[in-house]
Parts: sequence; structure tokens; C-alpha cells
Amino acid sequence: MDTLSVRTTSQVQFLDLTGQVRRWLQDQKVSSGVLTLYVPHTTAGITIYENADPDVIRDLTMELNKVIPFDDNYRHLEGNAAAHIKSSIIGASVQVIVDRGDLVLGTWQGIFFAEFDGPRSRKLHLQLTTAV
Amino acid sequence: MDTLSVRTTSQVQFLDLTGQVRRWLQDQKVSSGVLTLYVPHTTAGITIYENADPDVIRDLTMELNKVIPFDDNYRHLEGNAAAHIKSSIIGASVQVIVDRGDLVLGTWQGIFFAEFDGPRSRKLHLQLTTAV
Amino acid sequence: MDTLSVRTTSQVQFLDLTGQVRRWLQDQKVSSGVLTLYVPHTTAGITIYENADPDVIRDLTMELNKVIPFDDNYRHLEGNAAAHIKSSIIGASVQVIVDRGDLVLGTWQGIFFAEFDGPRSRKLHLQLTTAV
Repeated sequence: MDTLSVRTTSQVQFLDLTGQVRRWLQDQKVSSGVLTLYVPHTTAGITIYENADPDVIRDLTMELNKVIPFDDNYRHLEGNAAAHIKSSIIGASVQVIVDRGDLVLGTWQGIFFAEFDGPRSRKLHLQLTTAV
Repeated sequence: MDTLSVRTTSQVQFLDLTGQVRRWLQDQKVSSGVLTLYVPHTTAGITIYENADPDVIRDLTMELNKVIPFDDNYRHLEGNAAAHIKSSIIGASVQVIVDRGDLVLGTWQGIFFAEFDGPRSRKLHLQLTTAV
Repeated sequence: MDTLSVRTTSQVQFLDLTGQVRRWLQDQKVSSGVLTLYVPHTTAGITIYENADPDVIRDLTMELNKVIPFDDNYRHLEGNAAAHIKSSIIGASVQVIVDRGDLVLGTWQGIFFAEFDGPRSRKLHLQLTTAV
């Protein structure tokens, strides 16, 4: 298993890690398999999302903040209850297929670290599993 | 890695691919492992859902359209901002366990392609990984 | 593939299975890989969530029940339409990396079975895949 460091700069932020993950993968010299990307935090997540128009990221941020409001009579007293809930909805891991030594992403897809309680220093774990 | 073609026929649609995926799996002659199903699109997704009562699919469609409305002062100008957000919530991939050469699904579970910006021609990537 | 039995005791409940999964893993004598945890039910799911403050679980329960209400003019007549929708949003499976024979979880992370139509007897399937 390997670990990448991520530095987020806003409270809610979707950070494009596609280039960083792709460079890591090239060093592995693996032809095919599945890459599991795992976020070991409870107020963050990871998602595959559109990487062409920054407005699409702004819309996702706006809408998630609306559906899961920052304040909603939560019992948790640390002020980040909404961040925990968002992390469960978006999820702590994604799987990307590796074929011919490269990530198999759609034309408009990128791998985004989802920060819901930043800015913070974060980690992303990576593990490759073997294709049949 | 293999790829199946999918043809959706509505704007928002959950299409049962269980039979198609099962037939593909039978050709692989693999006894056990994990199957990763991956959607390379940013306005679609994939989910495991109830396959017995079509009303359950209609309820999911209705409720997702309500929670993430088609129009909500989005900045993205192509008219499919909601489709991007839904795809992030439902997710771009699922994993299904393979045992004794077959998909391990619950009695009422099916594999559904989630179209959020159709009708379109879509793709679904499949990759099997090796059981320990 | 192995299967654990789970007994839920409320209608909506997040049950911490981390200890049970960890004990199962120790018996497998596997050093590294990825563990797929799969729920074969259409009104339940599984999620990685904060395991330190029970209020964080109460907030997740409250907020999910609010975003996807129990009654919302659903067509499905069995009274558990909301449970199906929640299961699709939370997801039927999670993947956890295994390294040095142990689950790689963040400090505050636990593995939670998500019951949306309990109380019931449930099952959780486990499959380990091989690290590259």
C-alpha cells in the first residue's frame, strides 16, 4: 500500500488528483488490475467527477451544502456534523480500472478528493489488486 | 478489461443490466473473485437496486429528481448540472463478488445502469480481480 | 467468499461491525489486499463512518430521514420505499485496504452496517482480493 499527501485549502473543496495518481501509477509498472483509492478521514471523501468545467464543481459544492446544511440542529458539537454526513454520501473510496498501464477514465472524468471540513492536510491510500 | 454497450431511452433511467453482465461473466470461466463495473461517463452512474417491483425504480427516480432538482440556479450552462451531481451521489462503479462462477446478488438485487442525461449510447467497463 | 450474520434492532440503525470484521480477517492469515464487504439486501447498505461520538451517528440518521422522508407519495406499497432509496445512496458495498494483516482504517473510522428497514436478521458477504 502507498499513501499520497493532499493539502486542501478551503472548507469544502473538490481537488483534482488525477495527475498525481497517474504519475504514481506509472511508477508501479503494472499493466492491468483495479486501483482502490481510500480516504482514511471521516470528514472527507473521494469521487469521480467532471474535470472540464469548474462550474460543475461549484454546482456540486453548492448543492451538497444545500441538501446537507452546515447547521441543522445536529447533536455533534464540533461544528462539522454536516461534513461527516457528506463523507458517508460521497464515500471513502473509489475503484478505477487499470488497463495497458494507465487509468481507464472517461474523456471528462477526473479523480477528486472531496474535502468537507478543511482546510487540512489529508492522506490518500492506494492499493492495486490483480486482474484475473 | 471488457466493455459492454448500453442504450438508454429516457432522460433519467435505471436500466437492469444483470442478465447482460451475468452472460458476460459466464464466458470468462472464472470461479471466484470480485467484479468491478465502471461507468466512464460524468452524467451517469451504476447502482445495486431492487429488481422486483418497477415502482421502486420510479420512486428512486422521483426522489432523486426532487432532492437534486433539474433547475437550481446552477452555473453550468449545458442544462445537465443536476445529472453531474446525481452521478457523484450514486457513484461511477460498483463491486460484485463472484463465487462458484456466478454473481453473488441478493434475492431482490439487480445491477442497474443509472442514466441521468439520456437518452444516449453509453459504455460499461468490466474488470475481474483475483480472490485470495 | 465468507458470510457474517448481522442482527439489527431498530428501523434505521448504523451498526459498528469493525471488531467482527477485524476478527474475521485475522483468521484469514492474509498480509495484503483489498477486502470487499457486500450487503445482499435492497433496504440496507454499508458505509465507513465516524466511530467515536454516537451523536455523529444520530445526526446521520436524522439527516437521511429528513432528505429521504419515510412518506413522500411513493408508489411502492410495502411501506419501505425510502429504505430502498437510502440503500442506493449509501451503497451496497465498501472496499477496505488490508496491509500487514490488518484493516487500514483512519483513526476515527469504523465499518457500519446501515439498516434502513429493520429490525431484521441480515447478512454481510466478505471477499478478499490479491494485492499486486
